[in-house]
Amino acid sequence: MPATIQTAVVGATGYAGFELARLLARHPRAKKAVLFTRTGEASATAQLDELYPHVSGNGGYPLEPFRWETLRAKGVDVLFLATPHEVSREWAPEALAHGVHVIDLSGAWRLENPEYRAIYKFHDKEPALAEKTAAQAVYGIPELHRDELTNAALVANAGCYATSIILALAPLVRAKLVDLDHGIVCDSKSGVSGAGKQPTQKTHFVEVAENLSAYSVFNHRHTGEILEQLGLQPEQLTFTPHLLPIPRGILSTIYVRLASAMQPAAVEECMREFYAGSPCVRLFSAGKLPQIQYSLHTNYCDIGFTLAPDGRRLVIVSCLDNLVKGAAGQAVQNMNVMFGWDEEEGLR
Amino acid sequence: MPATIQTAVVGATGYAGFELARLLARHPRAKKAVLFTRTGEASATAQLDELYPHVSGNGGYPLEPFRWETLRAKGVDVLFLATPHEVSREWAPEALAHGVHVIDLSGAWRLENPEYRAIYKFHDKEPALAEKTAAQAVYGIPELHRDELTNAALVANAGCYATSIILALAPLVRAKLVDLDHGIVCDSKSGVSGAGKQPTQKTHFVEVAENLSAYSVFNHRHTGEILEQLGLQPEQLTFTPHLLPIPRGILSTIYVRLASAMQPAAVEECMREFYAGSPCVRLFSAGKLPQIQYSLHTNYCDIGFTLAPDGRRLVIVSCLDNLVKGAAGQAVQNMNVMFGWDEEEGLR
Amino acid sequence: MPATIQTAVVGATGYAGFELARLLARHPRAKKAVLFTRTGEASATAQLDELYPHVSGNGGYPLEPFRWETLRAKGVDVLFLATPHEVSREWAPEALAHGVHVIDLSGAWRLENPEYRAIYKFHDKEPALAEKTAAQAVYGIPELHRDELTNAALVANAGCYATSIILALAPLVRAKLVDLDHGIVCDSKSGVSGAGKQPTQKTHFVEVAENLSAYSVFNHRHTGEILEQLGLQPEQLTFTPHLLPIPRGILSTIYVRLASAMQPAAVEECMREFYAGSPCVRLFSAGKLPQIQYSLHTNYCDIGFTLAPDGRRLVIVSCLDNLVKGAAGQAVQNMNVMFGWDEEEGLR
Amino acid sequence: MPATIQTAVVGATGYAGFELARLLARHPRAKKAVLFTRTGEASATAQLDELYPHVSGNGGYPLEPFRWETLRAKGVDVLFLATPHEVSREWAPEALAHGVHVIDLSGAWRLENPEYRAIYKFHDKEPALAEKTAAQAVYGIPELHRDELTNAALVANAGCYATSIILALAPLVRAKLVDLDHGIVCDSKSGVSGAGKQPTQKTHFVEVAENLSAYSVFNHRHTGEILEQLGLQPEQLTFTPHLLPIPRGILSTIYVRLASAMQPAAVEECMREFYAGSPCVRLFSAGKLPQIQYSLHTNYCDIGFTLAPDGRRLVIVSCLDNLVKGAAGQAVQNMNVMFGWDEEEGLR
Repeated sequence: MPATIQTAVVGATGYAGFELARLLARHPRAKKAVLFTRTGEASATAQLDELYPHVSGNGGYPLEPFRWETLRAKGVDVLFLATPHEVSREWAPEALAHGVHVIDLSGAWRLENPEYRAIYKFHDKEPALAEKTAAQAVYGIPELHRDELTNAALVANAGCYATSIILALAPLVRAKLVDLDHGIVCDSKSGVSGAGKQPTQKTHFVEVAENLSAYSVFNHRHTGEILEQLGLQPEQLTFTPHLLPIPRGILSTIYVRLASAMQPAAVEECMREFYAGSPCVRLFSAGKLPQIQYSLHTNYCDIGFTLAPDGRRLVIVSCLDNLVKGAAGQAVQNMNVMFGWDEEEGLR
Repeated sequence: MPATIQTAVVGATGYAGFELARLLARHPRAKKAVLFTRTGEASATAQLDELYPHVSGNGGYPLEPFRWETLRAKGVDVLFLATPHEVSREWAPEALAHGVHVIDLSGAWRLENPEYRAIYKFHDKEPALAEKTAAQAVYGIPELHRDELTNAALVANAGCYATSIILALAPLVRAKLVDLDHGIVCDSKSGVSGAGKQPTQKTHFVEVAENLSAYSVFNHRHTGEILEQLGLQPEQLTFTPHLLPIPRGILSTIYVRLASAMQPAAVEECMREFYAGSPCVRLFSAGKLPQIQYSLHTNYCDIGFTLAPDGRRLVIVSCLDNLVKGAAGQAVQNMNVMFGWDEEEGLR
Repeated sequence: MPATIQTAVVGATGYAGFELARLLARHPRAKKAVLFTRTGEASATAQLDELYPHVSGNGGYPLEPFRWETLRAKGVDVLFLATPHEVSREWAPEALAHGVHVIDLSGAWRLENPEYRAIYKFHDKEPALAEKTAAQAVYGIPELHRDELTNAALVANAGCYATSIILALAPLVRAKLVDLDHGIVCDSKSGVSGAGKQPTQKTHFVEVAENLSAYSVFNHRHTGEILEQLGLQPEQLTFTPHLLPIPRGILSTIYVRLASAMQPAAVEECMREFYAGSPCVRLFSAGKLPQIQYSLHTNYCDIGFTLAPDGRRLVIVSCLDNLVKGAAGQAVQNMNVMFGWDEEEGLR
Repeated sequence: MPATIQTAVVGATGYAGFELARLLARHPRAKKAVLFTRTGEASATAQLDELYPHVSGNGGYPLEPFRWETLRAKGVDVLFLATPHEVSREWAPEALAHGVHVIDLSGAWRLENPEYRAIYKFHDKEPALAEKTAAQAVYGIPELHRDELTNAALVANAGCYATSIILALAPLVRAKLVDLDHGIVCDSKSGVSGAGKQPTQKTHFVEVAENLSAYSVFNHRHTGEILEQLGLQPEQLTFTPHLLPIPRGILSTIYVRLASAMQPAAVEECMREFYAGSPCVRLFSAGKLPQIQYSLHTNYCDIGFTLAPDGRRLVIVSCLDNLVKGAAGQAVQNMNVMFGWDEEEGLR
């Protein structure tokens, strides 16, 4: 358990990467992070605060183009990849070969099942190396994989939607209280930063404002993660993401049928037991529901539920900030677990 | 089929009432509407455009306190009640006794089943009269009740959420293509004007902006309408409304299991047949989904769907403007049908 | 004064062009408009409602690539150019040569003073033709140029910011009641659609939401129009545009010093006289101020003011919808004046 | 210079009071704050996180009704009043009599000039005591009153608009570089939380969204503060506040005429000298302007400017978070100065 470590971030100019740079800057056990742009990228500037004046006046966030020599010279212990999945797929094995821990925020290493992976269309130059790397990856939700994360070499930080859904369902599904064959409906709504910083028609203010839209019905990339982590079959999950006219935040409304009728107190008890010792999940009392606002700019996943009078139909609502618990904050939480520190270090 | 009629609105100062006043002002068969405030109400002013400068410069919208004599003196043919349900419950019978047609925008007359009605806590002074009146009421969705609406004395204009859900489900449910026992999930999201003009903590800008929240899970007032119109049992419907950070618009994401596997084309065909001759429903091709923006400020209900590869799990998305097709526009559409005019008269 | 005419629009896929297509579709004197895409443009599709499902179900808006032969074959009377200024600069002379009236929504033909024009960096292939064309152009604010617009061959539709500022100031400036040497401050705020449909970092939802920013201080392109139309010298005007987190609407707060102390009633009287006979300007009583909401989706420019107790410092507030009175609506209004019709035809 | 102190807040349930409770909870030198509701107030609950679930899971924020005995028993060193001005007017003298330092967030003690005070309509039961108390009050902007704030008994925390304007203007005005007789225009725009938590028609989501409105032109309460702190005469300042459709943040666009032509570098130098040693002001380079987003959730006031080519017309833009540097954050900054601590303690 080292007292302090040296971190580095590739892709600090994107929304999740920037959030990560900010979190690391105030983490008591992280030395000043090395912030890399990807080689030759258009937005490369000398200082992060030229792109994000939000952080000016806080001592400087110099950016430098990525080079392996720099990584070695600075003695980097953990490399965070806030990069497109195809970049992560290529760089993670190389970083591991350099003896550096990797926490990857993309979808590159989250999936085991090749059928689920197909949606990403990976084109690995060295397939064998890729497979070997994949085998090392630990799925990055500490509440579910705390032990494997300790000393892990490669963490596949969980997807934002996936985190909100998996955390809401894991206690009841693992306790076999859910009628899986009935099917689970996950109706999720996300703020726009989840779509990334690249301007597109879809993220144009005029297209998003005063609007709500469903997209990627039955074919969103996060589906595979949810299935694998919860041990579900594809037909058991219907997941519909929606784009909300807000910058950040996710709310998932989740519909399950319980295997047999329960009392609200028993549902709550099941969740409380599961998350005892998990400080980043906040459980609401039966019948009380979280709202997106409550968890913004925090690393909490908030979970509440309402049970129908029949004791069978259960509506679970979970909320989180897609850039924090859904990305950068969870990455830091994973790092904390990896090095044996307090799970909330630098996240309160 | 009269060429023109005299209309009147009670409650023109609320959001739905104001929308109605605007629609009637440009309706080619409606004489200038009489706009009543409710007696003694605080917001009573001489002109509607003092409250809503939006309509100033359009010839004046004088407001007058409600009096039955005025109703008679002006020869009112149709009285629109944009009033709280307890007011509608009292005034509708009296208006009918005066020989005036009534289109009520509240929940006062929509329900048959006394158990569903209980949620409104009606306190009728003359229960027998109330029952007799209720028996006359026609549920106000023209796409489902066109014949009964013709010459109807009392129309119970449908609820905004209910309209978006009933129109999405009616074709498949009536064709018995849905596995009702599996249960239907309706995840609806609405803009804030649905909560009315009265300022409350819930509608305070700071509470709504940058937020999303679910509310009234398993006990929203519109549930009864949906059950009755679709012929469902209570356990067959799970309906969760959410409050969106936008002023107007509803999107309902609806999850059903088909009784047996279908092709997308067959689902689309079922809907197209059902809505042939219904100009206010716009059907999207299989796999294309409506967004809230598309239907704002129109009287359309937009409906689209995506069918899972298994041919059983169906996601239907429907959108409408809660103040137009979800309230005032549908009220005008009901009036058009009542008098035998073109259903879209004054609504294009 | 023709009973009906044939119109055409180039650039109907942009925000202003689409608004124009919608307005023309319901104009009682315009035959179904020919909607051109610019040759080879990426967003070219067969139907406008594929890009804007908002208008589906209204009878079809077929799009076709621009060709001069089509223009002739369809007998187009007026060509609206909703195109970038460099395109307008090239096409307007050619359209005029074909004997077609042109209403141009870009900045190509608004300015007389070459120094003000310099900001547009025009590169005319035939400079002499361009100058000749420019000499024909009438600045397109009907309230100021009604006579010249009648039968005009080329109308340079006014800029959105410029319209809101010029209309607010014209009455007092023309009546020489303003101390021009003191300087006029115009602090304007606009919704995002003013920046166009092309996605850029500046129009990304996450950059605009929860934000406000000033831009182009002392060098916005509309400055020249304001100076010319009001007869001001550059040092007499300070104009600061801001980007608002809303899709549409402009509010300009304008600060002037009166040449000598006045009573509010006299200021109001000056404005009322000036706009007598101008149905698209709504004047508010002294001390009452318009808000952006009031004029959205209308062709009104709303103007109000508050005068300081000293009778000298005057704050004028003007509001309009940048896509209607600030672009497409004013273009239709200009067309109405051009052909001698009621100025509000198709705009109520 | 005490190592730690005991703080208390009255009015922790309002927006500014809640922000203050959060800031104090993480202040390294403040013991757990005593959070008082005002006696008998409706929103009184046992825990602040029942009203604001945002802070649940952070160890509890118990609320208790205000009592002087509690104040004494807990040994409170500083009492923060986040109360209406009439309450502050009554309680501050009593708290001082108990030997407790007071930092008041209302307008009760900010003004010296009785004419400016008149707008608040104070009704002091003991006018002599009120006058005596007022004489002790120090205006709470540390950048201007650092020395007087040290060991001050009563701090009148500055208004949010006033802070954004005073900090932008103080360097140039104090250096006598501004032509005051020409007049200064301050066009300010604020998020809705500035209007408080009480729901009113003005703060209803539907009235604010998609809108912008100017209000209190020539008669906003903060005008007196600005005049006094900058040494201006009433006719020298025109201040127009606007209500923005965002929850928080202020941007002020300020127009001044310099006494004689200057170079941008000289303007910047004047500001840099003034704010040397003031870590909570961030100055932007000449021609670069702050945006509201940059300062949200921070205690910074960001200031930038653009100078016209004539070297005389200067546009200054300043931004801050109205609940932090405009209220609770500045209150903590004032406390830090009062006790001789690092000015940014607990605010980074």
